[in-house]
Amino acid sequence: MKKLLRGTSLFLVISAFMGVSAAHAEVSEETAYILNTLLFLIGGFLVMWMAAGFCMLEAGLVRTKNVSTMCLKNIALYALAGIMYYLIGYNLMYSGVAEGTGFMGTFSIWGPGETAASEMIDVSGGYASASDWFFQMVFVATAASVVSGTLAERIKLMPFFIFVLVLTGIIYPIQGSWEWGAGWLDGLGFSDFAGSTLVHSTGGWAALVGAIILGARKGKYAADGSVRPIPGSSLPLATLGTFILWLGWFGFNGASQLALGSAIDAVAVSQIFANTNMAAAGGIVAAMALTKIIYKKIDLTMALNGALAGLVSITAEPLTPTIGESILIGAFGGVLVVFAVPLLDKLKIDDVVGAIPVHLVCGIWGTLAVAITNPDVTFIAQLTGVVAIGAFVAISSAVVWLVLKYTMGIRMSEEDEDRGSDLAELGLEAYPEFGHGSQKL
Amino acid sequence: MKKLLRGTSLFLVISAFMGVSAAHAEVSEETAYILNTLLFLIGGFLVMWMAAGFCMLEAGLVRTKNVSTMCLKNIALYALAGIMYYLIGYNLMYSGVAEGTGFMGTFSIWGPGETAASEMIDVSGGYASASDWFFQMVFVATAASVVSGTLAERIKLMPFFIFVLVLTGIIYPIQGSWEWGAGWLDGLGFSDFAGSTLVHSTGGWAALVGAIILGARKGKYAADGSVRPIPGSSLPLATLGTFILWLGWFGFNGASQLALGSAIDAVAVSQIFANTNMAAAGGIVAAMALTKIIYKKIDLTMALNGALAGLVSITAEPLTPTIGESILIGAFGGVLVVFAVPLLDKLKIDDVVGAIPVHLVCGIWGTLAVAITNPDVTFIAQLTGVVAIGAFVAISSAVVWLVLKYTMGIRMSEEDEDRGSDLAELGLEAYPEFGHGSQKL
Amino acid sequence: MKKLLRGTSLFLVISAFMGVSAAHAEVSEETAYILNTLLFLIGGFLVMWMAAGFCMLEAGLVRTKNVSTMCLKNIALYALAGIMYYLIGYNLMYSGVAEGTGFMGTFSIWGPGETAASEMIDVSGGYASASDWFFQMVFVATAASVVSGTLAERIKLMPFFIFVLVLTGIIYPIQGSWEWGAGWLDGLGFSDFAGSTLVHSTGGWAALVGAIILGARKGKYAADGSVRPIPGSSLPLATLGTFILWLGWFGFNGASQLALGSAIDAVAVSQIFANTNMAAAGGIVAAMALTKIIYKKIDLTMALNGALAGLVSITAEPLTPTIGESILIGAFGGVLVVFAVPLLDKLKIDDVVGAIPVHLVCGIWGTLAVAITNPDVTFIAQLTGVVAIGAFVAISSAVVWLVLKYTMGIRMSEEDEDRGSDLAELGLEAYPEFGHGSQKL
Repeated sequence: MKKLLRGTSLFLVISAFMGVSAAHAEVSEETAYILNTLLFLIGGFLVMWMAAGFCMLEAGLVRTKNVSTMCLKNIALYALAGIMYYLIGYNLMYSGVAEGTGFMGTFSIWGPGETAASEMIDVSGGYASASDWFFQMVFVATAASVVSGTLAERIKLMPFFIFVLVLTGIIYPIQGSWEWGAGWLDGLGFSDFAGSTLVHSTGGWAALVGAIILGARKGKYAADGSVRPIPGSSLPLATLGTFILWLGWFGFNGASQLALGSAIDAVAVSQIFANTNMAAAGGIVAAMALTKIIYKKIDLTMALNGALAGLVSITAEPLTPTIGESILIGAFGGVLVVFAVPLLDKLKIDDVVGAIPVHLVCGIWGTLAVAITNPDVTFIAQLTGVVAIGAFVAISSAVVWLVLKYTMGIRMSEEDEDRGSDLAELGLEAYPEFGHGSQKL
Repeated sequence: MKKLLRGTSLFLVISAFMGVSAAHAEVSEETAYILNTLLFLIGGFLVMWMAAGFCMLEAGLVRTKNVSTMCLKNIALYALAGIMYYLIGYNLMYSGVAEGTGFMGTFSIWGPGETAASEMIDVSGGYASASDWFFQMVFVATAASVVSGTLAERIKLMPFFIFVLVLTGIIYPIQGSWEWGAGWLDGLGFSDFAGSTLVHSTGGWAALVGAIILGARKGKYAADGSVRPIPGSSLPLATLGTFILWLGWFGFNGASQLALGSAIDAVAVSQIFANTNMAAAGGIVAAMALTKIIYKKIDLTMALNGALAGLVSITAEPLTPTIGESILIGAFGGVLVVFAVPLLDKLKIDDVVGAIPVHLVCGIWGTLAVAITNPDVTFIAQLTGVVAIGAFVAISSAVVWLVLKYTMGIRMSEEDEDRGSDLAELGLEAYPEFGHGSQKL
Repeated sequence: MKKLLRGTSLFLVISAFMGVSAAHAEVSEETAYILNTLLFLIGGFLVMWMAAGFCMLEAGLVRTKNVSTMCLKNIALYALAGIMYYLIGYNLMYSGVAEGTGFMGTFSIWGPGETAASEMIDVSGGYASASDWFFQMVFVATAASVVSGTLAERIKLMPFFIFVLVLTGIIYPIQGSWEWGAGWLDGLGFSDFAGSTLVHSTGGWAALVGAIILGARKGKYAADGSVRPIPGSSLPLATLGTFILWLGWFGFNGASQLALGSAIDAVAVSQIFANTNMAAAGGIVAAMALTKIIYKKIDLTMALNGALAGLVSITAEPLTPTIGESILIGAFGGVLVVFAVPLLDKLKIDDVVGAIPVHLVCGIWGTLAVAITNPDVTFIAQLTGVVAIGAFVAISSAVVWLVLKYTMGIRMSEEDEDRGSDLAELGLEAYPEFGHGSQKL
């Protein structure tokens, strides 16, 4: 359970310490209820905004002929994820999971017929249930966002959407129940504060097996072993996307404290904000330094992925590290990305935007690194969680991808890949008026 | 009055229920004052951000030769709206409106000479007056933003700005006083929680009569009845704009609860967040499915407008529906847009960005739909409000547009329309270095 | 000291005024602690977002061949600023400054080993220390962001980064300690609420001396005295950047109230939001009107800089002016920018994005204007602060720039300047697929 420090009332401590009457010093239960709810709402809209970040990042890193499809996928998957999480996901993850041993919750619609008017308000419950649902929902959308970038430029639209439905309705909630639903991994002592494994690696595994089953883009890997670089169409959009994600991450990690109704919570959320920011700073600086040393130039896309690497790396434990430790955890994530990107190319796994290095590799690193700064966590428990969730997500995703592949097919025709998915699937162009430069691909 | 549920202190309920002393359980008046104010400030900056959303959406949906003008219009109208609302609008909408019967407030500057230091703080008043003013002000800017997109690519800059001055200083505040100023429509039982009619339809009616009086873009409708598609210059910008609007809508609807000083308010705001999000999800999925069925392709711009349609549809009542009902209300909005866009073309009404289907049509739908989920509201009252505000805004806007047309003229010369308003009005290009592709228009 | 009005408990006033018992009316100390912390966190993420605003603004105002470098600089400087402020800056600015006389703090790392768990929570302290650190840190990044735009298109990457390290680790914190660290300028009665001088002019002075030492872009100023306009590559990106900055400024100014734990603070933050917004509105309208009169056309970039001019102008005192005064203060800033831009060109000082007129000129204006509306402030004290900080920052920056110039060199080779820093320094293109139009530069 990740809530040891959270939500504890400071009442007794303070009233003793300050020598004032209780009523002066403490936060009333209703005030705490409002503040906890407010944290979910602010965190929720910040994480919702990350959907725009993924969209801009990915739209900037694909070629012009696939940009509109990238936009459609990202905004549509956010909508689909919400609907599935409402219809199945939330209760499958949080409702009726056997504490400390459970493997999944129940199949049912979240809060059917529930409205503000009908809800029994029990302020001792801590927060408005819809704020919690909203906050949890934007996380599942994030996991799905991770997948879209890797498979860009050659996957068909419909099978992608179907995979998103299964991922957000079934696969994500089941593995989520193991830890955040207080199931068997939680019983084991596994800890993943805001989702390095539960969200980012989950998206990363789904992307990895998808990329293997789907195959690389035409022409990416030559028969002679050479790798053809395929530059993205708009680096300012990719940069904007990274900034959006960085901003949204304050909600992702900060509101994962799950409470703001006490001074201890306020201190924790503040520490998480500072640590999250500095891990990203560490990631970008490490990636810049390393690319400067190895390649003599600083690749902007590598710097951007360095920032994201830092953010993913700190997500499993943004509370217990010092700022200095956070910088180092993020920096090591940045280093991993610089090495993982060419490694994937060597394995001929075509990850268009670098999502696997960022979300899967750094997600694993961040989860294992919890054991370094959090004394309540063991390396073995962390490794168990990484392996169990990795195996479950990889295998179940592979089954879904293979079923899709051998039924409706998941890959665009060669002709469609050549002219681009925008014309093939949407019948339009992202930038119809711009002429084509030297790198027209 | 829309405030039945709002701001009620839970004090008595809870203190009885919890069996604790009053001082423990309740929110103090000053704390409630701060939280109410904070809701206005957060909601206010989120709605301010919608101005950027409209700007990006519209800049992405016009041709390159008009992009800079679109940017200028959107940022300038936000400034003009604020100044007019300060000079005239706020008091015309909220000050001295006869309760239950009034047709307008008083003509005077809001809070002249008022500063933080001089303001008498009465915490029982509920919130800081400047936070309320700021929140109300960003709404009037939203109404003006709706107009700019429809009339793009052929309207002259100066008459557009003059129209904005009249709309934000006079037309919007007068109709706003009828309901939110507690005037005659409020007395009748009309209900519009966050402005499907008061904001979105108001902008939509002004845009509609403007489009009719202004006429279509040159070449849009051929003599033989065919419609020439004129694709937008940057679909990622349009997508970004939609994401920004979606984000801002949490403030638009959520903070229209007008209070966060009690647990009931926190529950309500949370429900509104969830409902708002899911209505947008419903809108986008419905629009995607319908275009796939009808046109065999999923048009990205239709999907984006589907999301916005869902958002406008839920805006008149984001609190009483369940999440399931919200999805359906939004989805029906998405369906309306898919049919309204070609219908406008059939009527030769040239709406460059689809603002009339989204804001006017779905604004009407959302307002009428209140009667479905809110038992305190009648369909007749809703219809009365829709018709009354529609007639007032359409007629007064038509008068202004016609006066402008027959005095200074509202339409660019043919030559200027050909070379684009950026060169004609601003003397610059939005993208001076990009060459021209096949669709150069 | 700028905190006269801030954080004062309304307790006694209200309990007397309302005739209710103390426990009902007041904000408890722990609640105030949470609300103060929350203000820092919200303000902090909004100001962090300004880094994206500078990035988009500057990426839109440089030519395509330098866009990626602009993106890299902006995201990297945000990371570097954070690390330096952690390692040196914060304590140099705030720790151990002699009250009313000090010239700097101590050299040490902020909060080494400090974590949420180990921090002694004393709610009477007012806020979580990490939230304060985070909020202060994003301000130093803003100062550094100002510099990057002015020097664009001809400065080398490495010396720029080194300058950022010195600026954010040494120069900014030292001058910051004079006022916000409660040093000698504070003792003198100087007042700069949110940083017209401490942040914006500081960035502006560093940019000015950098531009002089670096020299103009090749071809910008012809021998015959004519000035060649070099238009930016994407005006929608520049507009987006301006909107982002405008949004972020609510955090910049609003959270500089430093407290939200009382009704007086809530009123103040609200007034600041309204004033900040209306100063920007005044700036944009003034700049538009003036350019229309002088040049017959409304230059979009001038309008954008007008908005920013208004924002910088109100930053030194966003609390005491009325809204009407705020509009005028902002409008005068907009006027200054319209005249300062051609003046700089006359002086052959090449400021690529107009940062010197906006941040330096309006920063000075805004600081002096405090004396108009704030009766506790004298014009002499304000002038002293402007001159002292200006001299210190200009001289120390000049030393750093000159050392860099005569050691590693700060200017790209002519050949690199011609092909652009993206190819020269990063080895990539921002928009590899877009052809080149008539204005290819």
